[in-house]
Amino acid sequence: MNKVIKKVNAAIVVIGDEILSGRTQDVNVSFLSKWLNDLGVKVTEVRIIEDDEESIVSCIRELNKKFKYIFTTGGIGPTHDDITSKSIAKAFGLNYDFHKEAYDILEKYYKPGEFNEGRQKMAKIPENATLIYNPSSGAPGFIVENVFSLPGVPSILKSMVDGLKNKIIGGKKILSKTISVQTVESNIAQSLEDVQNQFKNLQIGSYPFFRFGKVGVSIVIRSTEQSNIDACCKQIISFIIKKNIQIIER
Amino acid sequence: MNKVIKKVNAAIVVIGDEILSGRTQDVNVSFLSKWLNDLGVKVTEVRIIEDDEESIVSCIRELNKKFKYIFTTGGIGPTHDDITSKSIAKAFGLNYDFHKEAYDILEKYYKPGEFNEGRQKMAKIPENATLIYNPSSGAPGFIVENVFSLPGVPSILKSMVDGLKNKIIGGKKILSKTISVQTVESNIAQSLEDVQNQFKNLQIGSYPFFRFGKVGVSIVIRSTEQSNIDACCKQIISFIIKKNIQIIER
Repeated sequence: MNKVIKKVNAAIVVIGDEILSGRTQDVNVSFLSKWLNDLGVKVTEVRIIEDDEESIVSCIRELNKKFKYIFTTGGIGPTHDDITSKSIAKAFGLNYDFHKEAYDILEKYYKPGEFNEGRQKMAKIPENATLIYNPSSGAPGFIVENVFSLPGVPSILKSMVDGLKNKIIGGKKILSKTISVQTVESNIAQSLEDVQNQFKNLQIGSYPFFRFGKVGVSIVIRSTEQSNIDACCKQIISFIIKKNIQIIER
Repeated sequence: MNKVIKKVNAAIVVIGDEILSGRTQDVNVSFLSKWLNDLGVKVTEVRIIEDDEESIVSCIRELNKKFKYIFTTGGIGPTHDDITSKSIAKAFGLNYDFHKEAYDILEKYYKPGEFNEGRQKMAKIPENATLIYNPSSGAPGFIVENVFSLPGVPSILKSMVDGLKNKIIGGKKILSKTISVQTVESNIAQSLEDVQNQFKNLQIGSYPFFRFGKVGVSIVIRSTEQSNIDACCKQIISFIIKKNIQIIER
C-alpha cells in the first residue's frame, strides 16, 4: 500500500473498448462509488480506457501515486482481449504466470476435462497477488498493492465485493441530504451560493431535473458531519420558504 | 486546434460530483461516443472528475496535448458549483467574462425582468469562445481550441450536438459487426485468438452476457474496412459451426 497518500480516496478504472464505443452502458461506476462511500472512501476520479496494454500500464502507474485505492473493472476473462492481469503485472514489474491458489480454485470449479486452455488463462495473474474470491463464476479477481481488479460483468462484480470489506480502511463516511424543490436553478443560485459561503467543510450541489413534465432542482448537501448538514439544510429550507418555492422532497 | 495530433481521436471529460458519488448515472458518454463514431472520431478515453477548479484545469491541459477533440459535459449552469467555463478559461489563460453574443441570446430568451444574476452567469464564458447553440433552454455551450463544452442534462446535450457536425473533421468511420452465440467465452477463446492473429487492422471483442437465464457471448468485430470485417466474420462463423455452437444473432 502506498503510504504517502493520506486522503481516503479512490479511483475507478473501467477497462473496455465496449464501454468507450458506447455499445455497453457502464453501471459498475455508480455501484462501486456508493459501496466505497459507505465504507468511508470517496471516489474522486474515474477513467475509462481501451483494452490496450500501454494505456493500462501508464494509467495504473499514474493513479497509483495519487490514490489510496484503485479499482479496475473488466478485462480479466479468458479471451485474447482480456489483458488487465498481464498489464497490471507489467505496471508493477511483476511476473505474470499461473497463480497456484487461483489455479486450484478453477480446477476444482470446473468438471473434469472442462478446465481448458481458455479457463486456465484466468489463473494467470500477477505473482504474489492476493485473490478476490468469486462466488458466482469461479474466476477470482486480485489485489496488487493498492489496486483491486474486478471483472466487468456487473452481477459477478457485485457478488465479489462483500469479501473485500475488511481490506478497505475507510475514513469518515460522507453523509448527504437531498432537498428537491419546484423551481429553476437560476431562481435559487445566489441564495445557494450565500449558504455555501457560510459552510466551508460541506459541499452543496445543485442538479436540475425534468420529471412528469415539470422542472425542478435537487439540492444535495454533502459532509462527513451530520450537524453541519442539519444546520445547512435549515438555512436552505428557510430561503426556499421565503421565496415561496414548493418543496417536493426533503 | 492542436495541429500535432494526427489521430482522429477524442476524450470525454464528465465534470460532476453527482456522477462520481453514484447519485446520478451518466448516460452522456455512450451517446457522445456513438455520435462521434458516426462522424469518424474514436473516443479513446473518458475521465469523470470533481467539480473542482484545479482538477478541471489540470485535466484539460493534459488531454489537450493528447487528443484531437475533447468534449466536456456538465458544470455550465447558473449555480455556484458550475465552474466549467471559469476553469476552462483558466486552463487556456483566457479571460472569463460576459460574452456579448451569449449575453444577447440569453437576454432575448428570458422574459423582461427575468434575466437575473444567476442566468447572467451563464453568459460568462472564456473570451473569444465560439458558441454552441442550445435550442432547448437558451444557455449556450462553447468551443475553445479543441475543447467542446456541453451541459450535463442529457436531453439538452442531445439537442445541441446537431449544430456541431460541421465543426468536426472525422476520419474513417469505425464499422462493427456483432455475432452472438450460445456458449461460454472459454469455449471459443483460443479460436477467437487465432482469428485475431490473422487480422491485424481489426479488433475482435468478446463480451459475455446473461439473457433469459442463458449464457452467451457477443463477438464484436471492429474495423474501418467492411471487407476486413466480412472476411473475419466468415472465419468466425466457420469455427462456430464446426464447434456445433448455436448462433443467436449474426
